[in-house]
Amino acid sequence: MKFAAFNWNGFKSIGRVLETEKVVERFELPIENYENDGVTFLIDRELPSCVETIPLEKITLLAPIPRPSRNIFCVGKNYHEHAKEFSSSGFDSSASKGTVPKSPIVFSKLPETVIGSGQPVLIDKNVSDAVDYEVELAVIIGKPGKNISRDKTLDHVWGFTIVNDVTARDLQGQHSQWLIGKSQDTFCPMGPWVVTADEINLNDTPIKCWINGELRQDSNTNQLIFDIPEIIAAISNGITLKKGDVIATGTPAGVGIGFKPPRYLKPGDQTRLEIKGIGVLENPVKGL
Amino acid sequence: MKFAAFNWNGFKSIGRVLETEKVVERFELPIENYENDGVTFLIDRELPSCVETIPLEKITLLAPIPRPSRNIFCVGKNYHEHAKEFSSSGFDSSASKGTVPKSPIVFSKLPETVIGSGQPVLIDKNVSDAVDYEVELAVIIGKPGKNISRDKTLDHVWGFTIVNDVTARDLQGQHSQWLIGKSQDTFCPMGPWVVTADEINLNDTPIKCWINGELRQDSNTNQLIFDIPEIIAAISNGITLKKGDVIATGTPAGVGIGFKPPRYLKPGDQTRLEIKGIGVLENPVKGL
Repeated sequence: MKFAAFNWNGFKSIGRVLETEKVVERFELPIENYENDGVTFLIDRELPSCVETIPLEKITLLAPIPRPSRNIFCVGKNYHEHAKEFSSSGFDSSASKGTVPKSPIVFSKLPETVIGSGQPVLIDKNVSDAVDYEVELAVIIGKPGKNISRDKTLDHVWGFTIVNDVTARDLQGQHSQWLIGKSQDTFCPMGPWVVTADEINLNDTPIKCWINGELRQDSNTNQLIFDIPEIIAAISNGITLKKGDVIATGTPAGVGIGFKPPRYLKPGDQTRLEIKGIGVLENPVKGL
Repeated sequence: MKFAAFNWNGFKSIGRVLETEKVVERFELPIENYENDGVTFLIDRELPSCVETIPLEKITLLAPIPRPSRNIFCVGKNYHEHAKEFSSSGFDSSASKGTVPKSPIVFSKLPETVIGSGQPVLIDKNVSDAVDYEVELAVIIGKPGKNISRDKTLDHVWGFTIVNDVTARDLQGQHSQWLIGKSQDTFCPMGPWVVTADEINLNDTPIKCWINGELRQDSNTNQLIFDIPEIIAAISNGITLKKGDVIATGTPAGVGIGFKPPRYLKPGDQTRLEIKGIGVLENPVKGL
């Protein structure tokens, strides 16, 4: 099933996207604070009843989790071809430069970076002139856990969505640790919605990104260096994962720094990210 | 003024620590959610009235901000002598290895790592056998801001506290980015309380750490490579800082990896961190 968060008649709502992806069933919701939780409000609950069916083009999508309760976990250099292109870009400040990492490289993005499909990624040329795109499969944790063994990890996954791990390459390199370059305001488009885990085949899921209609990234989740179980086992090693945690699992080759000269995002660009079985996340780029 | 969060008669409370540091004036509070905010609930408010005065030894301190609303910002390698000892430890996966960083190295710790003074730091030897201490001055942001110019940064500081940036050195090195090694459960003792910014002289504030009564770290905030204004300007460059954000500003020389052989924390150890004008943060270390 697919669950979306959206604005409808001035109210934040959540609902189920029907198979045609043309309508959403808006849920009747109890009076509780689900505004920040978005669709993760539904974890461990019976599905609320449907109040009305609304054509998708009439709603304004929000990120499925408009404000995660803590920073988003992200994995870096996690597709073979991308690890190569990033290492040769001059911005790789990691110890595994030029090689495949031996353990997942895990950093974070601030929760306030999150925007929904359709909202603009804002570029401030006074802050960065090297803003890059990264299509990523993102895991939504449904069941808390710590020291999760590899074979149990998928029991903790509730669903998947798409994240654009937008990155200021210059700041990423300059500050050595990646938090600042990855956490610029609006740098985490997320959506268009969450699909429950049963609908994704992790062994064969195409993942693509177009900029202004040009296909730039074209890979498959079977090309991950560290697969989803490995990532969850590594993060939960001594750390309690929470319901609603988001883990972006890394991007394949074809990002802007992979080109010579680099092809960074600029105001007016249109990003289109697609993961088969989830949907399409589209965001315009605007200058500040 | 000093503000503390604490448990009293089974309820979470906040209050003002009097100058003698022997009693706390418990505040009368409106019915609102201040449990996670702790003392930052007081920012922008008139001081609530005092209900009763309680001897400090009768209360159980909580971290002054029991659950920050997003990951804690932390600065790495920010004292000259520590930058040297860390670079030669074998765990430094940063590009600035062996040198003084050209820009602040900024990473994060999960909000759930926070514990109060007196609560145990838990070590799981199956996860790490290289757990280290780091005394740090932590800034509490009181006024939101973005692209804050250096000369305005201190207007955004509400207060200061002490943080022990406990670190699993093996995981810090292994994962290249530092989130996992820094975010193990219980790895952020914070306290004992927050002191308002007017009481700290950033140009001359001694900062010390004892392990089992032995003085290990002994420096002064005037030895910071990047000072507080520089750090706040760097983080707010494209990122909106929020009220209640916590920024740990780096640790001086004398951490466990600075010794040959390294002197890591072990179950039974007692950590005692002191910053002049703030107070003393003490935590026992326990095995899991």
